[in-house]
Amino acid sequence: MSTRLELIALEGLPRIVPGDDLADLIAAALAANALTLREGDVLVLAQKIVSKAEGRYRRLVEVEPGPAAVELAAQAQKDPRLVELILAESREVLRVRAGVIIVEHRNGYVHANAGIDRSNIHNTPDDPQVLLLPLDCDASAAALRASLLRLCGCAPQVIINDSAGRAWRNGTVGIALGSAGLDPLFNQVGGQDLFGNRLEVTEAAVADELAAAASLLMGQAAEGLPVVLVRGARLRPAAGGCGALLRPRELDLFR
Amino acid sequence: MSTRLELIALEGLPRIVPGDDLADLIAAALAANALTLREGDVLVLAQKIVSKAEGRYRRLVEVEPGPAAVELAAQAQKDPRLVELILAESREVLRVRAGVIIVEHRNGYVHANAGIDRSNIHNTPDDPQVLLLPLDCDASAAALRASLLRLCGCAPQVIINDSAGRAWRNGTVGIALGSAGLDPLFNQVGGQDLFGNRLEVTEAAVADELAAAASLLMGQAAEGLPVVLVRGARLRPAAGGCGALLRPRELDLFR
Repeated sequence: MSTRLELIALEGLPRIVPGDDLADLIAAALAANALTLREGDVLVLAQKIVSKAEGRYRRLVEVEPGPAAVELAAQAQKDPRLVELILAESREVLRVRAGVIIVEHRNGYVHANAGIDRSNIHNTPDDPQVLLLPLDCDASAAALRASLLRLCGCAPQVIINDSAGRAWRNGTVGIALGSAGLDPLFNQVGGQDLFGNRLEVTEAAVADELAAAASLLMGQAAEGLPVVLVRGARLRPAAGGCGALLRPRELDLFR
Repeated sequence: MSTRLELIALEGLPRIVPGDDLADLIAAALAANALTLREGDVLVLAQKIVSKAEGRYRRLVEVEPGPAAVELAAQAQKDPRLVELILAESREVLRVRAGVIIVEHRNGYVHANAGIDRSNIHNTPDDPQVLLLPLDCDASAAALRASLLRLCGCAPQVIINDSAGRAWRNGTVGIALGSAGLDPLFNQVGGQDLFGNRLEVTEAAVADELAAAASLLMGQAAEGLPVVLVRGARLRPAAGGCGALLRPRELDLFR
């Protein structure tokens, strides 16, 4: 038996609108794609559709920027109303340059502009909207997993991903913002390698690696492919979300 | 036609020793796995086997640490001879804490301990060896691509990956240290999204995303699966390596 990892983007999902039940839509798309959930399958969802289903839109005309947002907006050359929303979604501003405000999001991830997105949103020039990240990606992933167990008789592991910038390297990569049913880290610390040497540190962020793999597939179509089924990932089952991926501030050498 | 990405780890590769011709061994492993290279295929190789084939071992007994290495070794609680090698492989030390020295490698990547590895190496307690990164991963990838074209009649895109730590997040993920035949960035800047909004910044580091995906598969076997064939990645053909992934120091907010 060969060792394979297969990622399949679900075709035919409708555009997601607030109030949509993602589990229903995904169950229908799986059926339409002639796919049946199996033990060990992982579903990776783009953050954007989770936010849309949860109605996380904000109309900029309804936002009143405070003094801190006005000052930061000048520095970052951004709309002060957008900056007000970024600040409201953040614990702390880490860095600022023209066009980008890098923050620690209230859920702990370091993310540009608090993950607030203006692309792939219906926008009219006189009433622009933006889309915030989901309220709690781990909770959204857990709810989706439970609903899919009910609908399909099998609970997939779930990852909610987003594209994120990085220190030191150009380009974004997919990372896991939330998860359910899996251990986001694969910890081999203390194990032995081929030659019996003690392995020092080989803790792989498997949820992020899978989030990156799915992101590659999601970006291949202009219309977007926001749900990817993954087979062969062999992620260890675990309760809880993916908070373990967040390095505590006091252990972070790059803040 | 569905949109799929498939990763297949090659089984049956021998342990790599200095002087091995990786192209020959991979061509044989492809044949043994009943796989034929196709246009658009990507081969991802673990850095470690490239280093081994290139004989990048160093015996610590042959290393004489200088004063800078001795001082840094005390700070990092590491073997001064290993630290001497780390410094020789680096342009600059960025951060130090017990067990880890984060440097800019001479090839530009920010990497812990200059990527020098003690695991999966035959070691005897009285004559420890370590393994340096390849001299030039882009050049190694290009040479492998050319040899495989000669051997198999088809030139795969090639990525050499390694596991790397990150700012802000726990766990390592695969990144691309070298590549050939592909554009490491997928640049949609200035394009339009579904709703005709101008996309601001959506430059995806596709080579890193694929390096991460392959890393997930490589880590699944205790004995290691250092070569992964990828189908469906649709990376754009390009000359050159993956230097474009390295953010210039003056644009890096986190140094």
